[in-house]
Amino acid sequence: MRTSAAEADRRSVESANASFYSAVEHGDLDLLGTLWLDGALGDQVVCVHPGWSPLHGRSRVLRSFAAVMAGTPYIQFFLTDVDVRLCGDVAVLTCAENILTGIEADGADDGLSGGAVTATNVFRRTAGGWRLWVHHASPVLGVVPEDGSDRDAADGEGRP
Amino acid sequence: MRTSAAEADRRSVESANASFYSAVEHGDLDLLGTLWLDGALGDQVVCVHPGWSPLHGRSRVLRSFAAVMAGTPYIQFFLTDVDVRLCGDVAVLTCAENILTGIEADGADDGLSGGAVTATNVFRRTAGGWRLWVHHASPVLGVVPEDGSDRDAADGEGRP
Repeated sequence: MRTSAAEADRRSVESANASFYSAVEHGDLDLLGTLWLDGALGDQVVCVHPGWSPLHGRSRVLRSFAAVMAGTPYIQFFLTDVDVRLCGDVAVLTCAENILTGIEADGADDGLSGGAVTATNVFRRTAGGWRLWVHHASPVLGVVPEDGSDRDAADGEGRP
Repeated sequence: MRTSAAEADRRSVESANASFYSAVEHGDLDLLGTLWLDGALGDQVVCVHPGWSPLHGRSRVLRSFAAVMAGTPYIQFFLTDVDVRLCGDVAVLTCAENILTGIEADGADDGLSGGAVTATNVFRRTAGGWRLWVHHASPVLGVVPEDGSDRDAADGEGRP
């Protein structure tokens, strides 16, 4: 029984996570708003876009997504390595965002561009379901072997 | 009473976080090992060094720190914007890592270099205290105003 409850939680978290990326793909700010903590917990929301400093608070975070979505003619996420860890009313999901974006130059459609981003998404269980608490996304700048043994890193490139 | 218990938790988490950065500064792998989840939870550990893909599992993560510390002649962290959020047995700490590192070229001491990194550190409460569950650190590539309104971001530079 305990295992199946955890499995159900895991699926609910994965579903909330998929909705998050779908909302960004479709520029659906209403849907996006339902996926983040709100009310008294809205102030606790944190979002790190790739290469950015953290944004704190629900309204600031949603405003940043509005700006990002307005400036992105096309975006599609192919999620891989989706992994969910649970502890009480908190879930930590890690995934790779394989991103395809449209490029616009001088108002003309200029083709597609790809990018690799790694994300940590922390959810909290609420009466209304699992809600985003923290989204931390960062660019993957090179390929590091899973055993963490690459020479570049040992030479100090990838400091903590 | 509830507030003071939360305050005590907050201080314990900040203290564990300070120990983490101190361990890296001093190349103290033994101390570092005591700060991450172990035993049955060791497999759940995740670490994202700036610009890297995630490393999963305690042994892989500790090995990566050994490599990073071996290749870094000098490193010092000035932590700012330390913020702790609690939910049950989970704590999410966000902070800015203002990093000063020694540069070594051709074996000669070549001075110091600075860098800005933003970190999300997720801790779990264990019988032995708060332990690191997830460390996600990423480079801050530009200055984004706290209201998330910068033009570059709106132009699609800082997509999620």
